[in-house]
Amino acid sequence: MKLSDAMTMMDAALAEARSRGVSVCISIVDEAAWPMAFIRMDNAPLGVIDVACKKARTAALFHMDSADFARIGHPDGGAYTLENTNGGLTSFGGGLVLKGADGVVLGGIGVSGASTEDDIDIARIAAKTLTA
Amino acid sequence: MKLSDAMTMMDAALAEARSRGVSVCISIVDEAAWPMAFIRMDNAPLGVIDVACKKARTAALFHMDSADFARIGHPDGGAYTLENTNGGLTSFGGGLVLKGADGVVLGGIGVSGASTEDDIDIARIAAKTLTA
Amino acid sequence: MKLSDAMTMMDAALAEARSRGVSVCISIVDEAAWPMAFIRMDNAPLGVIDVACKKARTAALFHMDSADFARIGHPDGGAYTLENTNGGLTSFGGGLVLKGADGVVLGGIGVSGASTEDDIDIARIAAKTLTA
Amino acid sequence: MKLSDAMTMMDAALAEARSRGVSVCISIVDEAAWPMAFIRMDNAPLGVIDVACKKARTAALFHMDSADFARIGHPDGGAYTLENTNGGLTSFGGGLVLKGADGVVLGGIGVSGASTEDDIDIARIAAKTLTA
Repeated sequence: MKLSDAMTMMDAALAEARSRGVSVCISIVDEAAWPMAFIRMDNAPLGVIDVACKKARTAALFHMDSADFARIGHPDGGAYTLENTNGGLTSFGGGLVLKGADGVVLGGIGVSGASTEDDIDIARIAAKTLTA
Repeated sequence: MKLSDAMTMMDAALAEARSRGVSVCISIVDEAAWPMAFIRMDNAPLGVIDVACKKARTAALFHMDSADFARIGHPDGGAYTLENTNGGLTSFGGGLVLKGADGVVLGGIGVSGASTEDDIDIARIAAKTLTA
Repeated sequence: MKLSDAMTMMDAALAEARSRGVSVCISIVDEAAWPMAFIRMDNAPLGVIDVACKKARTAALFHMDSADFARIGHPDGGAYTLENTNGGLTSFGGGLVLKGADGVVLGGIGVSGASTEDDIDIARIAAKTLTA
Repeated sequence: MKLSDAMTMMDAALAEARSRGVSVCISIVDEAAWPMAFIRMDNAPLGVIDVACKKARTAALFHMDSADFARIGHPDGGAYTLENTNGGLTSFGGGLVLKGADGVVLGGIGVSGASTEDDIDIARIAAKTLTA
């Protein structure tokens, strides 16, 4: 994944968030969970900065969307405390694993600041630009 | 426990993981929970590095397998938040306390990356080499 | 400072880095040192991600450029160990305090990955867009 | 870099350390500084576990040997406090950046526990197996 790919995703996420009238943070990390790009929209609460970053990190580190991760890293899931590894992970939606057309994991994107449903939708629309 | 013991365990774990066709991380710590040996198999998700280490650490620090630890370090267990001590512990299977033939605690082994059942089996087969 | 201001700075920094043929990370934080925007150019070493962020943070937290901070936060400076506060600060150039036309502190920008001289120049050219 | 490459390096480092009669820790990380393999020889002081890991991490994150890093991340160097970024880095010898025959960065190896000269030599002998 190149910076240009990340910037295209970022633009798509930003446009979608604006069209929904929400203020979010967007984090994009590479396949090793290292930050590639981040933006915070005006009026997003400061607390969601770290949430967006952890959502992207969770998806990249475990090769799964954070909503799926939520089912296992939960007191009633099969791997309670998994969410406490790696400096703290995110057990709810808004983090998506990014894959290329060939299915190879390229990284993760995390969106936070709106409703979880909006966060997920924005992330999905952004992620689609990778394989478009 | 000597490095040679840890390496024998590591070889056994690696062979078993390969025969099952899974990619795991394996961590072995001494009786004071300090790292002795670690390997990450090709294609294991990066997130499981820390999980394997925490499983081994949990077993060594509390003299019990992480699956047993899960029954007490859980919101419904007798010592909820115990899993949040010591930098974060692991409340699911795959970490085994290592004991000598005389029952003395020698350390811990943690396996992560496959199903919890596979992780536990691989750790058990490795641990058996200690008393063979 | 709005996200649009940060993005204008980011674009200017990116264009300047490209024209110099260097690969850098660029971090922009607000007046409370909270992240607003970040990008990592292709081929920048992973270690400079944190350096760029700490440069921006240092400038915003102490209302001074990191090169000026270096004169006091240093074993031979007047406030040795100041650089060890706030989670670790940066005692060399490449972090600039951002001020509006009226002199009010608006945040900080940090650039890292090229020579310190290039890092500083890139940050300066970006910062100028704020008061242009 | 595959686990098999890391294991070959590890074996070479271990053999060399034994022939010199020293006890060291050896850490090998990938190009994104994530752990691939680690061993601690019998009788190595516990404090050098983290040192070996940080040496390997320093080399991978900044694409340079830790002995070279020492010249810049030093109170009298051009980038004092650089050693305080990324969770703490290592400003003395024993960490080598690992490159393939084509010069591409593959990761880092860190050796600690003997004299710095021995640490460096052991790391070098191990690293040579990558391009042999």
